[in-house]
Amino acid sequence: MKIGIIGLGRMGGNISRRLMRAGHETVVYDRNPDAIAALVGDGAIAASSLEDMKGKLDSPAIFWVMLPAGDPTEQTIASIAALSGDGDIVIDGGNSFYKDDIRRAKDLAEKKIRYVDVGTSGGVWGLERGFCMMVGGDKDAVSHIDPILAALAPGIGTIPRTPNRMANEGEDARAEQGYIHAGPAGAGHFVKMVHNGIEYGLMQAYAEGFDILKSKASERLPEDQRFDLNLTDIAEVWRRGSVISSWLLDLSAAALAKDMALEQFSGNVADSGEGQWTIDAAMEEAVPVNVLSAALFARYRSRVDHTFGDKLLSAMRYGFGGHVEIPQ
Amino acid sequence: MKIGIIGLGRMGGNISRRLMRAGHETVVYDRNPDAIAALVGDGAIAASSLEDMKGKLDSPAIFWVMLPAGDPTEQTIASIAALSGDGDIVIDGGNSFYKDDIRRAKDLAEKKIRYVDVGTSGGVWGLERGFCMMVGGDKDAVSHIDPILAALAPGIGTIPRTPNRMANEGEDARAEQGYIHAGPAGAGHFVKMVHNGIEYGLMQAYAEGFDILKSKASERLPEDQRFDLNLTDIAEVWRRGSVISSWLLDLSAAALAKDMALEQFSGNVADSGEGQWTIDAAMEEAVPVNVLSAALFARYRSRVDHTFGDKLLSAMRYGFGGHVEIPQ
Amino acid sequence: MKIGIIGLGRMGGNISRRLMRAGHETVVYDRNPDAIAALVGDGAIAASSLEDMKGKLDSPAIFWVMLPAGDPTEQTIASIAALSGDGDIVIDGGNSFYKDDIRRAKDLAEKKIRYVDVGTSGGVWGLERGFCMMVGGDKDAVSHIDPILAALAPGIGTIPRTPNRMANEGEDARAEQGYIHAGPAGAGHFVKMVHNGIEYGLMQAYAEGFDILKSKASERLPEDQRFDLNLTDIAEVWRRGSVISSWLLDLSAAALAKDMALEQFSGNVADSGEGQWTIDAAMEEAVPVNVLSAALFARYRSRVDHTFGDKLLSAMRYGFGGHVEIPQ
Amino acid sequence: MKIGIIGLGRMGGNISRRLMRAGHETVVYDRNPDAIAALVGDGAIAASSLEDMKGKLDSPAIFWVMLPAGDPTEQTIASIAALSGDGDIVIDGGNSFYKDDIRRAKDLAEKKIRYVDVGTSGGVWGLERGFCMMVGGDKDAVSHIDPILAALAPGIGTIPRTPNRMANEGEDARAEQGYIHAGPAGAGHFVKMVHNGIEYGLMQAYAEGFDILKSKASERLPEDQRFDLNLTDIAEVWRRGSVISSWLLDLSAAALAKDMALEQFSGNVADSGEGQWTIDAAMEEAVPVNVLSAALFARYRSRVDHTFGDKLLSAMRYGFGGHVEIPQ
Repeated sequence: MKIGIIGLGRMGGNISRRLMRAGHETVVYDRNPDAIAALVGDGAIAASSLEDMKGKLDSPAIFWVMLPAGDPTEQTIASIAALSGDGDIVIDGGNSFYKDDIRRAKDLAEKKIRYVDVGTSGGVWGLERGFCMMVGGDKDAVSHIDPILAALAPGIGTIPRTPNRMANEGEDARAEQGYIHAGPAGAGHFVKMVHNGIEYGLMQAYAEGFDILKSKASERLPEDQRFDLNLTDIAEVWRRGSVISSWLLDLSAAALAKDMALEQFSGNVADSGEGQWTIDAAMEEAVPVNVLSAALFARYRSRVDHTFGDKLLSAMRYGFGGHVEIPQ
Repeated sequence: MKIGIIGLGRMGGNISRRLMRAGHETVVYDRNPDAIAALVGDGAIAASSLEDMKGKLDSPAIFWVMLPAGDPTEQTIASIAALSGDGDIVIDGGNSFYKDDIRRAKDLAEKKIRYVDVGTSGGVWGLERGFCMMVGGDKDAVSHIDPILAALAPGIGTIPRTPNRMANEGEDARAEQGYIHAGPAGAGHFVKMVHNGIEYGLMQAYAEGFDILKSKASERLPEDQRFDLNLTDIAEVWRRGSVISSWLLDLSAAALAKDMALEQFSGNVADSGEGQWTIDAAMEEAVPVNVLSAALFARYRSRVDHTFGDKLLSAMRYGFGGHVEIPQ
Repeated sequence: MKIGIIGLGRMGGNISRRLMRAGHETVVYDRNPDAIAALVGDGAIAASSLEDMKGKLDSPAIFWVMLPAGDPTEQTIASIAALSGDGDIVIDGGNSFYKDDIRRAKDLAEKKIRYVDVGTSGGVWGLERGFCMMVGGDKDAVSHIDPILAALAPGIGTIPRTPNRMANEGEDARAEQGYIHAGPAGAGHFVKMVHNGIEYGLMQAYAEGFDILKSKASERLPEDQRFDLNLTDIAEVWRRGSVISSWLLDLSAAALAKDMALEQFSGNVADSGEGQWTIDAAMEEAVPVNVLSAALFARYRSRVDHTFGDKLLSAMRYGFGGHVEIPQ
Repeated sequence: MKIGIIGLGRMGGNISRRLMRAGHETVVYDRNPDAIAALVGDGAIAASSLEDMKGKLDSPAIFWVMLPAGDPTEQTIASIAALSGDGDIVIDGGNSFYKDDIRRAKDLAEKKIRYVDVGTSGGVWGLERGFCMMVGGDKDAVSHIDPILAALAPGIGTIPRTPNRMANEGEDARAEQGYIHAGPAGAGHFVKMVHNGIEYGLMQAYAEGFDILKSKASERLPEDQRFDLNLTDIAEVWRRGSVISSWLLDLSAAALAKDMALEQFSGNVADSGEGQWTIDAAMEEAVPVNVLSAALFARYRSRVDHTFGDKLLSAMRYGFGGHVEIPQ
């Protein structure tokens, strides 16, 4: 198939490359001409504008928008909408908020444009490993782009099959290939959002565990209670037959093997919006999520030296006990 | 009555003073001769050693130990035990771990020494305001020292009476005076321990709330979403008729009135052992305590720049997404 | 002054009564004629409709809307706006979301109507104790209704003054009377929202602490580790001189004095929207709020027998360990 | 080699079988004669008592104790110690508390018995998949039993190697085979304990995430905000190329494929002691662990209908607001 790709960053560029390797044609656009040139070198067709892209695509035209969530995505989709019409398909492959998808799908439907939201996991590894995709939107549109999705997905590969798969009605055979049609517009990004919420929780569980291991050498402990543990070996051994083996553990093991002190990392941890949206969704549903929220808040906390709250605690302690807490 | 007081720090000194004001005699000892001299200036009888103290007390002798929990308290009680016998009373008024009380009471009982644990709240304000006391131990011993406890307690004062008090069997009339006999040895410090666990939770609730108020002026927010709130006024107004009025809020209001930025406080917040013991007790009982534990952990977190876990999070993010997190 | 009050539930009715006691006139309206009649019996002027109310008020007219947040408040304010104009004042005394205030104030300003949001704490006790009020909106409008606010507020009463009050520039003298002008439209409800978020945290801290005390009698513990504690006495003694004395503790002591087992209460705990909004605000500001969120989530959890997540945990345990978890 | 195995439950039985498959001889004992008979059928040598076992082993004798932590393990090790001496090796392969290991190793060393603690992960899958082992104790003893450990471990298998492994000094080549010598006595169980603490956190992260997905169909939400998601498909697709793929997710996918409603599971989730010990260790080190503790507390909460704390919340709400919370 032929597909237009807007946004040629790490993710967009690799999506284009993986599609071309599978024999698809990609028409590519980015604000940055160098990014376009790099893809053209790999076999893509350059577009000088969205209008130019539209002219170079088949009918119905398929656009894959791969831009930061918020204004960049919003404005680009509006521009594409202005150029498009009957049966054209707009895919948002970024990390949009799923309520924006619901709104956009409704708006675009009035112009007979079909909107598909694709939550995409796989990061920098997607080119080789394939992308795991959670898709929301109109059923016909999702079927139409199936060759694209199938090419981007990892496929069944060497991962063992789950027993009883496809024994129940309503299951999606594509799941074993690494993508699903999760539901109507917004469902793809909703599932991806929760995926990221879980990701935060998993990461923080490992982070706390390794912190306990490392601090077991702390001088705070009596000397005969200390262990000087090799975290690199521990991460490695857990990859092999333990209950907590995972891809995130593989990454941890690799980072620790490179430098067990992780000195190159500042410890100021960013969060994309999805952790926050996951907590919002949980609250709308009245679902208790102490782990997912604690994981998000640990990141907020990592980015400040002291909260104002910490100072207020000290002030209260001084007030009732005369405790004076001076800088360490 | 006549009572020996060992340990003349802030708490022990004020206990001696409040007892003398009520007409009791105190025989006082401290490692530091200046501390003894100061109390003698206020009317106390000096003891040059525990042995000397014992000689200056009536029979049965009453010892009030007011020292840091752990070794200092443990060793002093052992020394007193070596000097004491039939019917003498040893009071631990500090913050001992309640399981140590259970053990000590059993050991001392073999020598007919009666052990009483008194969890004492009131801090530097106790001299004027009176001390709130939670008492564990032998019933007769607790009755014997009632004049001491009654003198230290705040008394009914101006605090309104709770409706229905004393309508039920088994209630302790002393509660309205500000002290109770909570149960056998250890019960006093157990109740005080949970008191401190709750205290951590209350403090952190205010801390987080004021943090949200202060950060409402943050540049992270869109300009039309910011409020520049006067925290001093807010703390004050909440003292008056709101659901969250409390003594800790009074202290917060006083600290904020002195300096709304709380600049003199570093934000490194200490914890005594009791928050930790409270979580231990909850786990032994399988009681979920997300608030009390979060309050304790916030203090741990306040004392380090970055956890090792923060760095591991950054390392994983780099691993799957190529995200680079550099120092602020 | 003369003021119209719309919504004569527990809060609205008591506000009307407290104002009349202070010599103000209230024109009252409610969907339920009985509620109107009850207030008329206390001296209020009945209004048969909003239009009728408007006719019975002076100019500028002052409307106090005391209705559930969301549609009831929204629609009533829209109706008032249709009747009102130059200089009239609309007060939302309910629990509206502060972003709704910002929007409404902007909309009403186009018609020269002045909008004031009043976060009101005090519950069923407000009639006697006075209401603690956090006010947002136009400065002139807030000044105009000052006699109303002053009459509703508790006043300085017997609560001790905070040292250093009014020593700093910019402080609001009204705080000591029990109300403040917190900032522009929305600021009143924002401060009240955080107040409620803190309230949840404080309540959960006590709840967890009393749970630990009660479960200390649990058969899960070895017999010599159990204490059968009198919670009624403990709540009472903490009211007197302890660090954790508060109004919420007073209420706890009263409830426990009535029935130490609290058997009349189901334990399904509701939450109004404000706990959730507080977490939302914290996330917008990137403030870590583990205590406030845990308090909210404990309420969600209290309302279901088992989460689906609990079942998934059991399913995983069965998967890796063959553990079978059957109903208790 | 020849090894005695005491405790032929799921774990002990499979350890014996896996060792025999690798050509080792096992002498087996269990309180239950049927368990012995079953192993003998698979080629093991029966022991009628610990004394009998000792007689059938080589010198130094090697004992692998695979019993529940606490009294059963403690008493069995004492009995073995009474029979053993110079150079004999006692392995505790169960889930003992690491401080018990430190104590036992010291005690046994006085009799020249060498103590090794082996934290063992792998559950019911270990027979086929191999066991991941974290070993603590005397270096010579650990070297002596290396053939045993190597046979039990999964080996390098098909799991990709971690880049940079063995590039740093001090790394343990055995980690890639699935076992490590973590440190002195206790270090093995300490690392296994933290492993289980992390396991709880990971499981709860998935549990909360799937709860949000399932509750997205809740009638609490406005109808146009609901998605009826297929959790079976979602678990499956996340196994394939997503950031959160893991063995626990594989197990979740298998459970959901069998029954998406998980109806056979009650949702009362047990915890072994290790989650609790992990929190204890964290507190001793002053490491904040909001995620690991929340995961543990969710299990406590899953086992009661209502906490007493829930009722106290209702009682306070009734006290300040007149809110009546009746059973759902």
